[in-house]
Amino acid sequence: MTGGMSSDEFRRYGKELIDWVADYYEKVESLPVTPTVQPGAIRALLPPNAPEGPEPFAEIIEDLDRVVMPGITHWQSPNWFAYFPGDSSFPAILGELVSAGLAQQGMLWSTSPATTEIESHMMDWLVDLLGLPEAWKTTGPGGGVIQMSASDSTHTALVVARQLAQQSTSLDNIVAYASSQAHSSIEKGARVAGYRHFRAIGVDDHFAMRPDLLVEAIISDRRAGLLPAFVCSAVGTTGTTAVDPVRAIGEIARSEGMWHHVDAAYAGSAMICPEFRIHQDGLELADSYVFNPHKWMFVNFDASAFYVADRRPLIETLSILPPYLQDAASQSGAVIDYRDWHVPLGRRFRALKLWFTLRSYGAEGIRTKIREHVAAARSLTAQLEGDARFELVAPTLFALVSFRHVDGDPPTDRLAARVNESGRAYLTASKLPGGSSFIRISIGQTNTTQHHVDELWTLIDEMADPA
Amino acid sequence: MTGGMSSDEFRRYGKELIDWVADYYEKVESLPVTPTVQPGAIRALLPPNAPEGPEPFAEIIEDLDRVVMPGITHWQSPNWFAYFPGDSSFPAILGELVSAGLAQQGMLWSTSPATTEIESHMMDWLVDLLGLPEAWKTTGPGGGVIQMSASDSTHTALVVARQLAQQSTSLDNIVAYASSQAHSSIEKGARVAGYRHFRAIGVDDHFAMRPDLLVEAIISDRRAGLLPAFVCSAVGTTGTTAVDPVRAIGEIARSEGMWHHVDAAYAGSAMICPEFRIHQDGLELADSYVFNPHKWMFVNFDASAFYVADRRPLIETLSILPPYLQDAASQSGAVIDYRDWHVPLGRRFRALKLWFTLRSYGAEGIRTKIREHVAAARSLTAQLEGDARFELVAPTLFALVSFRHVDGDPPTDRLAARVNESGRAYLTASKLPGGSSFIRISIGQTNTTQHHVDELWTLIDEMADPA
Repeated sequence: MTGGMSSDEFRRYGKELIDWVADYYEKVESLPVTPTVQPGAIRALLPPNAPEGPEPFAEIIEDLDRVVMPGITHWQSPNWFAYFPGDSSFPAILGELVSAGLAQQGMLWSTSPATTEIESHMMDWLVDLLGLPEAWKTTGPGGGVIQMSASDSTHTALVVARQLAQQSTSLDNIVAYASSQAHSSIEKGARVAGYRHFRAIGVDDHFAMRPDLLVEAIISDRRAGLLPAFVCSAVGTTGTTAVDPVRAIGEIARSEGMWHHVDAAYAGSAMICPEFRIHQDGLELADSYVFNPHKWMFVNFDASAFYVADRRPLIETLSILPPYLQDAASQSGAVIDYRDWHVPLGRRFRALKLWFTLRSYGAEGIRTKIREHVAAARSLTAQLEGDARFELVAPTLFALVSFRHVDGDPPTDRLAARVNESGRAYLTASKLPGGSSFIRISIGQTNTTQHHVDELWTLIDEMADPA
Repeated sequence: MTGGMSSDEFRRYGKELIDWVADYYEKVESLPVTPTVQPGAIRALLPPNAPEGPEPFAEIIEDLDRVVMPGITHWQSPNWFAYFPGDSSFPAILGELVSAGLAQQGMLWSTSPATTEIESHMMDWLVDLLGLPEAWKTTGPGGGVIQMSASDSTHTALVVARQLAQQSTSLDNIVAYASSQAHSSIEKGARVAGYRHFRAIGVDDHFAMRPDLLVEAIISDRRAGLLPAFVCSAVGTTGTTAVDPVRAIGEIARSEGMWHHVDAAYAGSAMICPEFRIHQDGLELADSYVFNPHKWMFVNFDASAFYVADRRPLIETLSILPPYLQDAASQSGAVIDYRDWHVPLGRRFRALKLWFTLRSYGAEGIRTKIREHVAAARSLTAQLEGDARFELVAPTLFALVSFRHVDGDPPTDRLAARVNESGRAYLTASKLPGGSSFIRISIGQTNTTQHHVDELWTLIDEMADPA
C-alpha cells in the first residue's frame, strides 16, 4: 500500500473541503469565539504514533470536526475584536489553494518567474494604492518583497542597519531605538540581530515617541562611545495605535546617519484611504517600511510587505552565491532574486492571494470595508464617551478603541473577563505604560459590520459594573 | 461595489479551482519542465495599476492560464531533477486549503490550541518515525517546531549559540564553523546573526568535513583570542549529499563547549527508512537539528522541522513578553507558546498538511516512495558507472546522483544544457570544490518513478558527447 491520493480522490475530497470551509464561514458567527479546551486536550485525541498504513481520507475529514474544531480560536469570527485582525477572505483562500497546487519555489527568478514578477508587481501596485514613496517601487532604486511577518521584516531591517554600522565599530557598541510602545518585535528583532543595546524611548500623552527624548538618548549613547544605528517609528502602535512623529524621527535619523525603519504593520492597510495618509507624513525619510496585508487587507497570513528605499545594502547584506544557485538570468542583472531579500531561501507563491484579493474586491471594495470598520470604531468610541462608566485612554485614530472603566483596574479587568467568557465576543485586556488596565477593541475582521459592533456595545453595556 | 466573494461563489469557484489543480497534475508531466519567458514578460501582461472596481472571479481564473502558467517552473513535474525536490502532494494541498480556511494565528497556545498541539504532536511523531533522540520530544526537555525553511531553522540555532557565547566575550570574537560543502544558509545565517567569523572547514575525498581540520581551526581561533561557538554538521550536503562525521564533530563540540547543529534538510526524510540511519549516528550529541518535510516527505513548503535537545536556551533567547501577549495559559507553564521558538510572532497552521500527509500515505507509504526514488537513483548510478563517457564524482548515498563527463567541463556543461533545453527533464549544473563542472540529478519529486528516470537516462545517453 503506497497510500496518498489519486487525482479523482483529490477532486472529490477537495470539493468536500471547499464546502467544509464555506460551511465554516456560514456558521462561525454563531460559535463561541474562543475554545474551552484545557491544555493537552487536543493531543489526547491523537494516537501516540503515526499510522503505519494509509488511512481513508474521509476519516481525516471527520477528524477536522472531532479533533481540530474544539481547539480552534475563531480569528475569522465577525465577533473577533482581540489583538489586531488576522484576516482571511474567500479570494485569498483560493489564492492559497492555487499556490499550494503549483507548489513553486521562488528563490530565484528562474525557479519561478511568475512568483517573482507577480510579487514585484503587487508590491508596486501597493505603492500607488497606499501613497508610498515612488522610489520604493522595484522599477526604482528600492523595492518591496513579501516576508512572513512584520517580525521578519523588522528583523531584516535591523540586520542591514547593523551590517552598515559594524563597518565602523564593534558589534558590542551598536544601538537600536524605538518607543516604549513599539511592538515587541523591535526589541526581539534587535536581540536576534545581535544588538546589545536597545533603548525604549519615552512617549507623550498620546503614546507617541518623543523626539526630544530620542535625541537625548542618542547624545548620551554617543558620549558613552556607542553607535546609534537604527530607529523605528511606529505608525499605529500595538497598544493603542499611536502614531510616532515619522518626519521628526526621520530627520533625526538622517542627521545621525541611522537607519530609519517604519512599522505600520496594522495601520498601513488603512492608507488605501487617502484620508489616513496624514499619519504617514515623512515616509520619504524612511529607509525601510513594513505593513501586513495579512492583518487588515483581507489577505491570509503570511503576507508581510517589506519595502526598502534602496535595495543595494539589503542585497549586499543577504546575498551568498554558491555554485548550485548560480544562474544565467541572475548574472545578467535583469531580474530580482528574492532569496537575497530575506533570511529564508525557499519561498511560496504568496503574491497570488494578494493578486486575487485586490482584483476580487477592487481598491474601492477594500476602501469601503476599511471605512466601515473605522466608522464602527468611531460609533463605539462615541458610545463609550457618552457613558459615565468609561473613559477612553487613547484617541481612535483607526479602528482600535482603547478604553477603561473609570473606577480603575478591577472593574476594567472584570468587564474584559466577562465579555470574553461569554463567548459572544473576544477582546484584549492590556496594560498602559504605567501599569493600569485597559481594554483594546480591534474592529477589522473581514466580515465584521456595524451590527456586530452594536452587539458588542450591548454586551459591554450589560456587563460593566456601575460607576 | 464592495467586491469580494459570496459563500456560494466560493463554493463554485473553489470547486473549479480544485479541478484546475487536478488537471494541472494530470498534464504536468507532458509540459516542458522550465518556462521560456524572458525577464519582464509576465509583468508585461499585468496592468500598471490595481483595479478600482471588483473584477469577475472567472476572469481571474482565466488569467491563471494566460498570465501565470507561462512563468511557472514545474517543480511538481515528475521530470524534475534539479536542486533538491520541493514536493507537494494531494493530501498536503488539502491541508493547506483547510489551514487557509481556518486562518489561525498560532503565536500563543491560547490563540489556537489546535495549531499548537497538533504541531507538537506531529513533531513528536516524527521523532519516532525518523529514529531521532527521544529527548527531542516536546514531552521531554527538548522539542520540535515548524519553521519556514532550513535557513530560518539554522539561523535560529546560530542566534541561540551566539547568545550563549556573548555572555563571556565580545560579539566580535564569536566564530561559526561548517564544512566548505555546507549549504549557503549556514554562512548566510551566521552573517545575519552577527558572526564576524565564519570558517569553511576542508573536506575529505567524499566531501565530508575533516574533523582534524576542524580541530586545527578551533585551536588557531582560540590562540587568536576568538571564541568558537557554533559548528554545523551536514547529513547530506547540497552539492553531493555528503555526510559529515556527526559523532566526531559532536564530541569536539562537547569538549569545546560549542553549540552543535545538524543540517539534514534534504536527507532527514530518508531516515523514515531505518537502513539510512547509519548516516545519522551521533545525533544524540546535537544541540539542534533541522530537516525539511517540504523537500522529500511530500508536504508542501513551508514545513521545516527544527528540533532542540534542550528548549530552555532557545526560549530564553527568543522570549519577549509585552502586556498584550500576556496570557493565563502561558503563565501557567502548562503550554507551549511557539512564538518563543522562532523570529516571527504570527504563524500559520502548518501542522495540518503534515498530519494529512502522514495519515493519507501512512509511514509505510512514505517509506515505499523514498525507497523507489533511491532505487531509481541507484539504477541510474549503475548505468553511468557502466558507461565509459561518465564518471561519478560522489557516491549515491540517497537519491542524488552526481557525475560528470570524463572529458571535463565543456562536455559536462554541454550535456546539462542540452538536457535542460530539451524541456523533457531539468537537472542542475554545478561545480565541485576545485571548480570542475558536474551534474546533479536529484530524484525525489512525489510522482517520479523508475520510468521517468529511464527516460532521463535515454536523454543523457543521446545527448552526451562521445568520450
